[in-house]
Amino acid sequence: MPCLPDDGPDLLLLTGADVRIACRTGRWTRATAGLAEGFTQANLVVLPADFAFEFLLFCQRNPKPCPLLEVVERGGTAAARFAPGADLRRDLPRYRVWRNGELADEPTDVADVWRDDFVSFLIGCSFSFERALLEAGLPVRHIEQGRNVPMYRTNRACDGAGRFAGPLVVSMRPMTPAQAIEATIVTARFPDVHGAPVHLGDPAALGIDDLDQPDFGEAVALRAGEIPVFWACGVTPQCALLAARPPIAITHAPGCMFVTDRRDADLASHAATNP
Amino acid sequence: MPCLPDDGPDLLLLTGADVRIACRTGRWTRATAGLAEGFTQANLVVLPADFAFEFLLFCQRNPKPCPLLEVVERGGTAAARFAPGADLRRDLPRYRVWRNGELADEPTDVADVWRDDFVSFLIGCSFSFERALLEAGLPVRHIEQGRNVPMYRTNRACDGAGRFAGPLVVSMRPMTPAQAIEATIVTARFPDVHGAPVHLGDPAALGIDDLDQPDFGEAVALRAGEIPVFWACGVTPQCALLAARPPIAITHAPGCMFVTDRRDADLASHAATNP
Repeated sequence: MPCLPDDGPDLLLLTGADVRIACRTGRWTRATAGLAEGFTQANLVVLPADFAFEFLLFCQRNPKPCPLLEVVERGGTAAARFAPGADLRRDLPRYRVWRNGELADEPTDVADVWRDDFVSFLIGCSFSFERALLEAGLPVRHIEQGRNVPMYRTNRACDGAGRFAGPLVVSMRPMTPAQAIEATIVTARFPDVHGAPVHLGDPAALGIDDLDQPDFGEAVALRAGEIPVFWACGVTPQCALLAARPPIAITHAPGCMFVTDRRDADLASHAATNP
Repeated sequence: MPCLPDDGPDLLLLTGADVRIACRTGRWTRATAGLAEGFTQANLVVLPADFAFEFLLFCQRNPKPCPLLEVVERGGTAAARFAPGADLRRDLPRYRVWRNGELADEPTDVADVWRDDFVSFLIGCSFSFERALLEAGLPVRHIEQGRNVPMYRTNRACDGAGRFAGPLVVSMRPMTPAQAIEATIVTARFPDVHGAPVHLGDPAALGIDDLDQPDFGEAVALRAGEIPVFWACGVTPQCALLAARPPIAITHAPGCMFVTDRRDADLASHAATNP
């Protein structure tokens, strides 16, 4: 279904390129959920080259929370593999600029703070597997309820790399046990966008005291007969990033993802991703 | 079955640690195939830190030929995840030392050339999936024939990263079509050790003119009703490494792998590899 946003009925954001151009020209500055349906959306992390090896290694050691879609080498502003025509400095609706681990600004364009030694990381996003869940007839409660997905810091530490370390952060979707089994099979096919769940059932096993008090996002209803199902979440690398306190770093603003030219359907399994 | 090598009937190399100690003390300087059955063996690549980000990115971009098991950070000589008690400078039977992309030496110990800025990469090896093939009752012809697996440079380029680039190199095992299907299912479960085949059937599709003339290893018999089945091969990163011509690099000598404490069976799927 084409996107017909409230504030611009003439703005048809059908493809990833449409969304990026709308962002680049300042016509779209809000969240990207539901735009350019079927096109893969990505988390963005931009770091000075001095931090790039350690962050890449952090992702390699923690592929479930940090599934790398593409790394753009030093100074690059296009994503040759996922969006060759993109300008990473302008094509997201809104960014966050971090200085020494503190939020410094939330602009719609980062061209003025861009540096030649920046390395950019595109990380898979749960939007891709949620689409697969919905297509399999499985419930995605926060979408039903029109909320942000609830996310929780856990008591599981990521495997650190250099200055990068921190807890695994998870997102949660309530399901019946039968649905949880089906959802495990469906999402296991998408290792590049967090893959299979990391836990299901008792939240205490992850050190989560109260499902109604998520650390990020909003709580959702858990109905009779349902159990919480937990997936590794892309907020994990953002926490590790802040712990490393780089002098400057840029990420997407929450929900304001980088929309690529690739299709979610093509992310299924690793089969087609190699020479 | 315990290993009873010809030249040392009292040498029982039952575990990865047994093999490493035998190497470290100079009692084992030959190929490691068949030793410490069930323990994961790994390709080794050691590079100066200045090359580490680009090589890590090369592996990230080409996961089928370069499936990373572990990266040992700058100066480290143990493999915390795969062999905590190891000494990477001494625990392989034989090494190759490369200077500016040329083979310079083939010693049994590299402690004298080790540098504090070395970063070490352990890369999955086909021994792990061959074990799974044999357990599934599938033929592994070069083992039957007591030869080295035949390997071929292909016309497919890897996705380059910085100074690292080169062709995909493949290994080949002949099978019937039904066996090739079964072998695909079996090896797809092992993405950390090259995973599913990259091609089957016509060698010309990979630019291979003559199966009887492998670029590395030895030719094997292709029997009536069989087709060649091709897997991405760990020689690929070695070719890319030589193309980058680092001032110094260290790899394992052919067949003389690093034997770890982990079990091949634990490499099946990505399920257990995350926080």
